[in-house]
Amino acid sequence: MSLNTFGHLFRVTTWGESHGPALGCTIDGCPPGVEISEAGIQTWLDKRKPGQNRYTTQRQEADAVEILSGTFEGRTTGTPIQLMIRNTDQRSKDYGDIAGKFRPGHADITYWQKYGIRDYRGGGRSSARETAARVAAGGVARAALAHLVPDLTITGYMVQMGPHAIDRARFDWDQIGRNPFWTPDAQAAGDWAAYLDTLRKSGNSCGAVIEVTAKGTPPGLGAPVYGKLDTDLAAAMMSINAVKGVEIGEGMAAAALTGEANADEIFMGNDGRPVYSSNHAGGILGGISTGQDVVVRFAVKPTSSILKPRATITKAGEPAEIITKGRHDPCVGIRAVPVGEAMMACVLLDHLLLDRAQTGGQRGAIG
Amino acid sequence: MSLNTFGHLFRVTTWGESHGPALGCTIDGCPPGVEISEAGIQTWLDKRKPGQNRYTTQRQEADAVEILSGTFEGRTTGTPIQLMIRNTDQRSKDYGDIAGKFRPGHADITYWQKYGIRDYRGGGRSSARETAARVAAGGVARAALAHLVPDLTITGYMVQMGPHAIDRARFDWDQIGRNPFWTPDAQAAGDWAAYLDTLRKSGNSCGAVIEVTAKGTPPGLGAPVYGKLDTDLAAAMMSINAVKGVEIGEGMAAAALTGEANADEIFMGNDGRPVYSSNHAGGILGGISTGQDVVVRFAVKPTSSILKPRATITKAGEPAEIITKGRHDPCVGIRAVPVGEAMMACVLLDHLLLDRAQTGGQRGAIG
Amino acid sequence: MSLNTFGHLFRVTTWGESHGPALGCTIDGCPPGVEISEAGIQTWLDKRKPGQNRYTTQRQEADAVEILSGTFEGRTTGTPIQLMIRNTDQRSKDYGDIAGKFRPGHADITYWQKYGIRDYRGGGRSSARETAARVAAGGVARAALAHLVPDLTITGYMVQMGPHAIDRARFDWDQIGRNPFWTPDAQAAGDWAAYLDTLRKSGNSCGAVIEVTAKGTPPGLGAPVYGKLDTDLAAAMMSINAVKGVEIGEGMAAAALTGEANADEIFMGNDGRPVYSSNHAGGILGGISTGQDVVVRFAVKPTSSILKPRATITKAGEPAEIITKGRHDPCVGIRAVPVGEAMMACVLLDHLLLDRAQTGGQRGAIG
Amino acid sequence: MSLNTFGHLFRVTTWGESHGPALGCTIDGCPPGVEISEAGIQTWLDKRKPGQNRYTTQRQEADAVEILSGTFEGRTTGTPIQLMIRNTDQRSKDYGDIAGKFRPGHADITYWQKYGIRDYRGGGRSSARETAARVAAGGVARAALAHLVPDLTITGYMVQMGPHAIDRARFDWDQIGRNPFWTPDAQAAGDWAAYLDTLRKSGNSCGAVIEVTAKGTPPGLGAPVYGKLDTDLAAAMMSINAVKGVEIGEGMAAAALTGEANADEIFMGNDGRPVYSSNHAGGILGGISTGQDVVVRFAVKPTSSILKPRATITKAGEPAEIITKGRHDPCVGIRAVPVGEAMMACVLLDHLLLDRAQTGGQRGAIG
Repeated sequence: MSLNTFGHLFRVTTWGESHGPALGCTIDGCPPGVEISEAGIQTWLDKRKPGQNRYTTQRQEADAVEILSGTFEGRTTGTPIQLMIRNTDQRSKDYGDIAGKFRPGHADITYWQKYGIRDYRGGGRSSARETAARVAAGGVARAALAHLVPDLTITGYMVQMGPHAIDRARFDWDQIGRNPFWTPDAQAAGDWAAYLDTLRKSGNSCGAVIEVTAKGTPPGLGAPVYGKLDTDLAAAMMSINAVKGVEIGEGMAAAALTGEANADEIFMGNDGRPVYSSNHAGGILGGISTGQDVVVRFAVKPTSSILKPRATITKAGEPAEIITKGRHDPCVGIRAVPVGEAMMACVLLDHLLLDRAQTGGQRGAIG
Repeated sequence: MSLNTFGHLFRVTTWGESHGPALGCTIDGCPPGVEISEAGIQTWLDKRKPGQNRYTTQRQEADAVEILSGTFEGRTTGTPIQLMIRNTDQRSKDYGDIAGKFRPGHADITYWQKYGIRDYRGGGRSSARETAARVAAGGVARAALAHLVPDLTITGYMVQMGPHAIDRARFDWDQIGRNPFWTPDAQAAGDWAAYLDTLRKSGNSCGAVIEVTAKGTPPGLGAPVYGKLDTDLAAAMMSINAVKGVEIGEGMAAAALTGEANADEIFMGNDGRPVYSSNHAGGILGGISTGQDVVVRFAVKPTSSILKPRATITKAGEPAEIITKGRHDPCVGIRAVPVGEAMMACVLLDHLLLDRAQTGGQRGAIG
Repeated sequence: MSLNTFGHLFRVTTWGESHGPALGCTIDGCPPGVEISEAGIQTWLDKRKPGQNRYTTQRQEADAVEILSGTFEGRTTGTPIQLMIRNTDQRSKDYGDIAGKFRPGHADITYWQKYGIRDYRGGGRSSARETAARVAAGGVARAALAHLVPDLTITGYMVQMGPHAIDRARFDWDQIGRNPFWTPDAQAAGDWAAYLDTLRKSGNSCGAVIEVTAKGTPPGLGAPVYGKLDTDLAAAMMSINAVKGVEIGEGMAAAALTGEANADEIFMGNDGRPVYSSNHAGGILGGISTGQDVVVRFAVKPTSSILKPRATITKAGEPAEIITKGRHDPCVGIRAVPVGEAMMACVLLDHLLLDRAQTGGQRGAIG
Repeated sequence: MSLNTFGHLFRVTTWGESHGPALGCTIDGCPPGVEISEAGIQTWLDKRKPGQNRYTTQRQEADAVEILSGTFEGRTTGTPIQLMIRNTDQRSKDYGDIAGKFRPGHADITYWQKYGIRDYRGGGRSSARETAARVAAGGVARAALAHLVPDLTITGYMVQMGPHAIDRARFDWDQIGRNPFWTPDAQAAGDWAAYLDTLRKSGNSCGAVIEVTAKGTPPGLGAPVYGKLDTDLAAAMMSINAVKGVEIGEGMAAAALTGEANADEIFMGNDGRPVYSSNHAGGILGGISTGQDVVVRFAVKPTSSILKPRATITKAGEPAEIITKGRHDPCVGIRAVPVGEAMMACVLLDHLLLDRAQTGGQRGAIG
């Protein structure tokens, strides 16, 4: 990881601002021979695309991806893949009045302090539009994973909106695609819709908690001690805009457990592979995957662009009040779901390649 | 970050197992001219050292550090610093009976699956003894920070033990060094002592939440979008043994806030620098430090080595029951406090150097 | 360096094939506030552009660069800079007959063996067109260097074509821009023109030696022992297509000298800075710049695409004969001159940033 | 590569100074299950050890290696391997009189300028003693290669001493181990002995050219375009002390060839694998190995520590004359032979792992 690059071997470098001509990513290190297409990657981008329902920003972006390099006759060549997405609906005028003020909760002030230069149009590089490039990269990672580990599935979903968490007893995988919040709890989806309408009308916003589960992850991915799978997942999720917390398995709640309660007991499964009595560990022990579901959760803070007036200062150091108009998501967590999935895909593929490098993919035998 | 190396420019590579002859770290990229000494680094190691009170493992390790390279006449030369700590109290016999079984909650099974070889003596590389090397590296990082940013202070403390959180109303910085739990809440210290005694007697263990605060962090440290300061802090903390969750500022609780409540309003301070009405952000906006306190929290799961019998399997795939004798911390969170501080020091120094590289340390003017 | 990325802090990732829609580079880590423009970068690209005289390929490429990200109001923002160059004159039909054969001296066979997939149109990723992206990146590096070290100048020139070396006694810096070979020896330029005409008429090609000199390099750039300035220069130059040898200062000829002859004696200059009696070292001692001219040389092999029939095999393993038609440089060394300059610029800027990170740019005093 | 670390996946970080208590290396990323032992590594160190004959420094160092971590029951565990070599014969007094002067041709002046601090005892970090750590790392790399590619052999030898090159017509692999110069030309060995005696008596020194050949390298190692096998070999060799030039295959002489002469024609071998009419390419096309011998050459400059008085300056900027007493190699090239072999082993193993990561080791079929 180096500023705008993520990954050890499957390396993704994203580039572009919300209000420049385009944004995209350069992917280096993808295995050769993987079938990818613009249509295939577009599927994932469409999940993240703004303006799809009344709970997300009304900015209209086609988010149409172009593959500029790295493929030949529909398959990856092993050389860098350039994915470009043109910005088509910038409306810079929306931002004119905030050029001289720092929006609370935004990167305006820190970018200014660090770089002495600031693209004030919509946050520039700090805009959540950057995550479109991640989702595109995740589409390539998913295609490579489908090639290498066909049984692996990655699913993200929302488990809390504002203060309202789902009821795990109602968890239904089939519900996830059927509501605008990607939540497995149909009843929560209804409650959240009402909650979000109220928030939006009052010009306010809320945060969310997203969970991403990878089923079918092979055992043995990860490494001691700074290259742990959970270390890289934590970095991946924390690097998403607005994320303030990351949890693996039991997460912060692990602190409250006793060792007895927390132990995932081990048994021999009928297929000759170890099974576990529970998954407090989130599928990772000592930084290495166990073969259980890999489970990551992250919290997204409430959208900082709100219509409620907040106190701030100008570049000249004068006090000011600010209202952030424009077209903003009342809960950015909704569109963070496919982003979290994309980061999970990139991390798992990266570790699959790292493992193949060091061990050749061989596993120590049990039984 | 690459397997056992942490950091972009201040790069720490730790090495060594719990039951080998020695462990240590190689530090590359330290600025020259920094005064360091074995005695100075030892100060930090002594905070982490086992056997200091009845709440930590009774393993007796001097944890005496030797500087093998990288200094001349008491100052760093800018070349690699090798810090070695001899293991002196290995007692491999304690581990003989677990050689063929996988301890639940430990890395035994994943190391075996990945590498096909396993140093069963005390966890080998996955042992928490590796953190001694981190603390040593943190001592060097602190010395360099003292040189470059004299006003910066880094303090770790425990804010929750098992299910028992501190009362923030009783928070007293001066209490932190006065109890065996490094907690700012004197009353909690008393309650926890009783709780831990009970746990230990029953052969059980508990988790904890540690918070680390860096005061005096300059604004402008960090970078978009994968080199964010919070991304690297999340990776740093998640890489510590037994950590299952990491939070920046408001953390997971940010999800429950509204945008209005979460906004840290900005004012101009009397000294001509921005001040904020609150610090939900934990001192980081858009991945870059604001100049406020940088606040990180992490949860440590309960010690997996307990005297309660748990179900497991043997290498041959046979069912077995296991009790982990030996000398273990009933709450590894206590000794994780100095480790968290060390990681904070390494990350901040690393980002200070990264920022100096790119911007020369210049800041955009406000006012 | 990681496959298609070059540099530690000023990191350039190039992407694109000779016959895809576009190629370019993503630059990460550029200092903010540097003035760059498409016109400015184009200046350097035009030096490398094909079809400028009868000694280079007649392929017509505008090589027009577009800045897609990383600038605001004409200055770099410190975020990733995307430079894109559209391919406009692909003529894939020229390559149809070689799709099934491996051209000797080309990467056809090794790409096929490694990736099991091969973009046979003009070499794909292994095409020298990739160097256009390097030259574009070099343009940005030069702009940043002009900002940070105004006195630094980087000049490349040809010192040997085929077996014909220049006469150093005739070395004239002013001649370099006045002949199609970028050579400081006007008489050699004339001889080479005749030599190259003969070669081209016979369908043959030749190699060349290019030298790049950086005047005004500050002392103190570089680092022990794998991050040496000469190590990175060697890597930079060897990574250019067709390069087979790299020399620093005296280069391979250093082997034949005695220690007495090779010693660059040190004196105190009138300006209070050290001066040297000679520069066998090429401006680098122990991997670190002395402040003298940094001098690098590299040899380019003869163009492998020639009209002379050569024996080869097909993908099916059948023997075949091949003639490489198409539009090829009889001496690719000519267009390698601006590429060598670009790599020198990237390496020096990268090491300037690395040095600033570790030492803050402070120097040990002499006198 | 990052200052003192070499390699992408098989990462070697060396540490230590010539006159500190010890030096060594930390190896991260080694495959698990490789048999290594101190005795096995010592074999390679003994080839480099000083004081073995009258042509190398009379400094007496046992160069005894200790494995401090990363193995269990004689096999690598996949975790960091720490190799330590104690310095036993420092004799700092030999260097007392040069503490205030800068030795021409040495890193004294550049280290001072860069770091403002200098370990003047024998060069400190810039001493050739650092190469002992490389040879130790190379011993581990060779063991891993023996495991993964049993037919691969790596052999270094001297092909030129001072101005005296070997006669390739007399090249005999069996001679290499039979003379103190590791040369395949028995007659040259005799001539060189006389030459070196004369040089040494006059207090002078000379340079050398070393060639390293890897037979049995699989095709497909390397990558475009900055991760080329030749790029990494060039970096590896140029990073060795005193090296001023690196060549692959035909090297600098490639410039003088025509395309017709330089083309390595391709045929189908009897074993169903491609064979080549010649090896001007040095076994690498487009940065990727062909399966032919990989051939690298590097030039070592003459030892800078000579008894001939040379002009220099003191730290105070005063003119001075210097003679470097102490125990120095009249031709450091001799001891550079095992160092070059070690670097070749590290690079090949690293690229073998990189290739396994990306392609799984599969090869495109020919025939």
